[in-house]
Amino acid sequence: MDFQTQLKQKVEAIEQILEKYLPAEEGYQKTVLEAMNYSVRVGGKRLRPMLMQETYQMLGGNGDIVEPFMAAQEMIHTYSLVHDDLPAMDNDMYRRGKKTTHVLYGEAMAILAGDGLLNYAFETACKAFLLEPGNENIGKALTVLAGKAGIYGMIGGQVADVEAEKRGLALDEEKLMYIHEHKTAALIQSSFMIGAILAGAGAEDVKKLEKAAYNIGIAFQIQDDILDVTSTLEVLGKPIGSDEKNNKLTYVKAHGLEKAKEDVEKLSKEALEILQGMQNRNEFLEQLVVYLIHREK
Amino acid sequence: MDFQTQLKQKVEAIEQILEKYLPAEEGYQKTVLEAMNYSVRVGGKRLRPMLMQETYQMLGGNGDIVEPFMAAQEMIHTYSLVHDDLPAMDNDMYRRGKKTTHVLYGEAMAILAGDGLLNYAFETACKAFLLEPGNENIGKALTVLAGKAGIYGMIGGQVADVEAEKRGLALDEEKLMYIHEHKTAALIQSSFMIGAILAGAGAEDVKKLEKAAYNIGIAFQIQDDILDVTSTLEVLGKPIGSDEKNNKLTYVKAHGLEKAKEDVEKLSKEALEILQGMQNRNEFLEQLVVYLIHREK
Repeated sequence: MDFQTQLKQKVEAIEQILEKYLPAEEGYQKTVLEAMNYSVRVGGKRLRPMLMQETYQMLGGNGDIVEPFMAAQEMIHTYSLVHDDLPAMDNDMYRRGKKTTHVLYGEAMAILAGDGLLNYAFETACKAFLLEPGNENIGKALTVLAGKAGIYGMIGGQVADVEAEKRGLALDEEKLMYIHEHKTAALIQSSFMIGAILAGAGAEDVKKLEKAAYNIGIAFQIQDDILDVTSTLEVLGKPIGSDEKNNKLTYVKAHGLEKAKEDVEKLSKEALEILQGMQNRNEFLEQLVVYLIHREK
Repeated sequence: MDFQTQLKQKVEAIEQILEKYLPAEEGYQKTVLEAMNYSVRVGGKRLRPMLMQETYQMLGGNGDIVEPFMAAQEMIHTYSLVHDDLPAMDNDMYRRGKKTTHVLYGEAMAILAGDGLLNYAFETACKAFLLEPGNENIGKALTVLAGKAGIYGMIGGQVADVEAEKRGLALDEEKLMYIHEHKTAALIQSSFMIGAILAGAGAEDVKKLEKAAYNIGIAFQIQDDILDVTSTLEVLGKPIGSDEKNNKLTYVKAHGLEKAKEDVEKLSKEALEILQGMQNRNEFLEQLVVYLIHREK
């Protein structure tokens, strides 16, 4: 089976897992449940749960304990987009070609849907305790899930990004890399790390994968910046040139398009070498990393 | 030592525990850390961590494993206030006599500070895994912490409340009680339940305490509604009459002031009977519940 067919099937399988963990839309709080589910169902690449599952399987994991964590990670990723799109933040009306949550449900409900998704991510991950009571790796995985999503992870990056944009604070290369590392790479890192931890990997392998994921996350973000310059609304499903419009310093602007493309290649290669040095190989996971270099949306 | 002196000392001791778990204000994400700490330090009654600690001690707990959960619970309570005060929600400029977070730090940073506090609550609670590795009650406590704060707990109540206010959806007594139960009682419940679970209490005692906490939470909320009618800005530290101004259906409006006062008394009495029926007694905890009836702010 070719990579694209495999990818498509895996995305569908992940979306079935997500559906299993999304809340039923009923009760007095129904509106927020609809807004949450809408936000998750709008879709995307499902990259983070996929990386988590592939890492879990690569390292010998064969249970379903990874599933609540996959769903939790996608909920965290989704909440960050919902809040990021708010009028007080990026004020985006469309994402992935669909109306953003606050456009459809109003600002108050979008704030609450984001809060709901973040909180429900931890509720969902806690369901792993029911699947494997006494498995001490669950606590470790939860610690990584929370740590990489929070003020020393994704939220930290988002804060530095907002300040650079809104307050026009000087953005040097170090700060730009801080933003990329935390806003984007952190959740890629926790995806690899949680997959490894739940499969029972040792601390050394978890550390190596954290480094590989750093590279992949940075490469992924640079590719995002590249596409914002080179793609089209039709291909990308969201307005292009938004970084330019918002006068946002990007990797492309700092280093030029060619250097940015080279660095995506280099970072991904290094990451692949780490993956290939693991005791077990996962061909699909390696192809997925390569795919990130050439993706067009 | 009289109750008020004890209460004051206990609040101070809890604030020291909170300080221990608040993030250091440094790094590129410094602004959000300042906004988070400001929001927590503005203060309040520290009721939820206090109820958690007192329940823990009542049921024989004598370690420090409850401390990260106390801090986590106060962070969750605080984030809910920060987001509740936002322009898109209640648009409150003052809370506890001090400027609200969005007034001081701007709307974007207040959204991120709320997100940061919610996420950091789970990071903080996860520190219990380091204190007592292999203690299976930690997973149970985390499940309750997340569950009572989320879409089937506090956020659920907040959603119904926002819809009743903003969209003018009809608010009958059942929906009003749903709001009180979820928006207010849920975190009181998790405070009691987590204290009990971490002390190693059995499922039956946890269930009884959940019921007692329901009563206390509802009584607490009705008392809040009463104070909004009967108190002053100076005593309360926030504008009075805001429910009336916002044309908000409250328990007082639905049932009258006298009935509301009677019900506070009745609910608290029932809760006390449950507490007094536990194997061990905690005199301070019982006094604290009585205090809720007569509190003036």
